Amino acid sequence: MVDILHRVGIEASVDEVYTALTTIDGLSGWWTDDTSGDTNVGGVLEFRFELGGFDMEIQTLEPAERVLWQVVDGPEEWIGTKVSFDLRQEGDYAMVNFKHEGWREPVEFMHHCSTKWAVFLLSLKSLVEDGKGQPAPRDVKIDNFN
Amino acid sequence: MVDILHRVGIEASVDEVYTALTTIDGLSGWWTDDTSGDTNVGGVLEFRFELGGFDMEIQTLEPAERVLWQVVDGPEEWIGTKVSFDLRQEGDYAMVNFKHEGWREPVEFMHHCSTKWAVFLLSLKSLVEDGKGQPAPRDVKIDNFN
Repeated sequence: MVDILHRVGIEASVDEVYTALTTIDGLSGWWTDDTSGDTNVGGVLEFRFELGGFDMEIQTLEPAERVLWQVVDGPEEWIGTKVSFDLRQEGDYAMVNFKHEGWREPVEFMHHCSTKWAVFLLSLKSLVEDGKGQPAPRDVKIDNFN
Repeated sequence: MVDILHRVGIEASVDEVYTALTTIDGLSGWWTDDTSGDTNVGGVLEFRFELGGFDMEIQTLEPAERVLWQVVDGPEEWIGTKVSFDLRQEGDYAMVNFKHEGWREPVEFMHHCSTKWAVFLLSLKSLVEDGKGQPAPRDVKIDNFN
């Protein structure tokens, strides 16, 4: 099993970041415009992109501390993997420790997704700090298709 | 052992990317302005940032295909780890598969470095495609210190 790890520090409160991770408005503002679903624990969020998408079951919601999803539909390599955001206030910054864990193999698609997650976490930072993220389809493109 | 993985596709030839990875001018244009050292196999490159730096011994140089460095000085967590860039032409794009491997533990600093490598690989992409990267100290800041 191999994991994608990232961290960003956002000049904001952990509460503001938590809202961006747990509401349809927030998620649509940094990951993809086309976000829908049930935002409660046990609910499924549907994230759609030009080339497909991901369905995430919400497994944990600890206000201002932790969000955990499990992928229940999407690309084969993603199914069963888990995505988590751990939050911690450090002075003026909300530190966000991100993990996308449980990849079976470090396939090339995992390399791509790792870079792409960084792009979207910087979009989350922009959204919370400046009120404006770069969700798909306005995200930073990192190669020939995405 | 845990690894940081990334991939970017750069609209250019693998030769152009290889040059940006193997010359002082190229490396200074996307990673840090303050780059010096010996660019031959067995030589040591010295990358300096506001808060310290890394010394990399060049272990492999395969023109237009592969660059491999080993960290010989820098933060304790980095020493002994290896950084590689594997290149492949795919139509108009040079695909860059990046790996920073051999971390002993997935410490929080590794999360930070993973995101930061994405920022610098996008800087490499900008440099090669548009002639202008964002090397330190003009890199995109991702938290309260870096």
